Amino acid sequence: MNCIFCKIIKGESPSYTVFDNNDFIAILDLYPRSRGHTLVIPKKHYQWVYDVPNFGAYWETALHVTRAIQKALTPEFITYVTHGLEIPHAHIHIVPRQKGEHVFVPDIKKFAREEMEEIAEKIRREIKNG
Amino acid sequence: MNCIFCKIIKGESPSYTVFDNNDFIAILDLYPRSRGHTLVIPKKHYQWVYDVPNFGAYWETALHVTRAIQKALTPEFITYVTHGLEIPHAHIHIVPRQKGEHVFVPDIKKFAREEMEEIAEKIRREIKNG
Repeated sequence: MNCIFCKIIKGESPSYTVFDNNDFIAILDLYPRSRGHTLVIPKKHYQWVYDVPNFGAYWETALHVTRAIQKALTPEFITYVTHGLEIPHAHIHIVPRQKGEHVFVPDIKKFAREEMEEIAEKIRREIKNG
Repeated sequence: MNCIFCKIIKGESPSYTVFDNNDFIAILDLYPRSRGHTLVIPKKHYQWVYDVPNFGAYWETALHVTRAIQKALTPEFITYVTHGLEIPHAHIHIVPRQKGEHVFVPDIKKFAREEMEEIAEKIRREIKNG
């Protein structure tokens, strides 16, 4: 199957990984709607988030990443979205909003590679600090 | 505090309730983006969904309601959204999408009172059937 998330999980495609355990991985969205826009993805391929059997644990993982994003990027607030039509492998969008970023669906931003790496490193550091 | 969700939970404001237990309530959104657009709300007042301490259980409750919506309304797929600026009491939006309802943020629809009651009853029935 030609699934980009499965390829990332197998290490066959590059990603800005911020979290990784047995069941889930969290990576920066390559088409970010905000600084630190992160995707939480089950390692097993399921189409929809509500197909993931350990659904509570899946969201607890998203919360764990949320806490790190709060410390790393101090957003005003954070929104969650699941849509899933573009890539048929379950993913939770964590979209941190800086002061005034209030619209439902912010436009896609472009950050330089070094900036993406820096954002990822900040989040990773806070995940390590627990 | 003048919180509309707290009033609904106390029974001081009307709602189309589809689910109710010790910790959470699920009601039809009065400004629905789709048929069966439902909000899952903690009974205790927290501003953001990620402030809710039993976060995994909160989403498991949303999943429980999702299953009932799937049976009651047979949507093509379902999206989750948390935003939370309008009403500062945590709520998860469950937005079932019928065939072709693919846009990120569908326009607000208007359903007659009888139709809202009928939708709520269909979902309630499936929750009872478990």
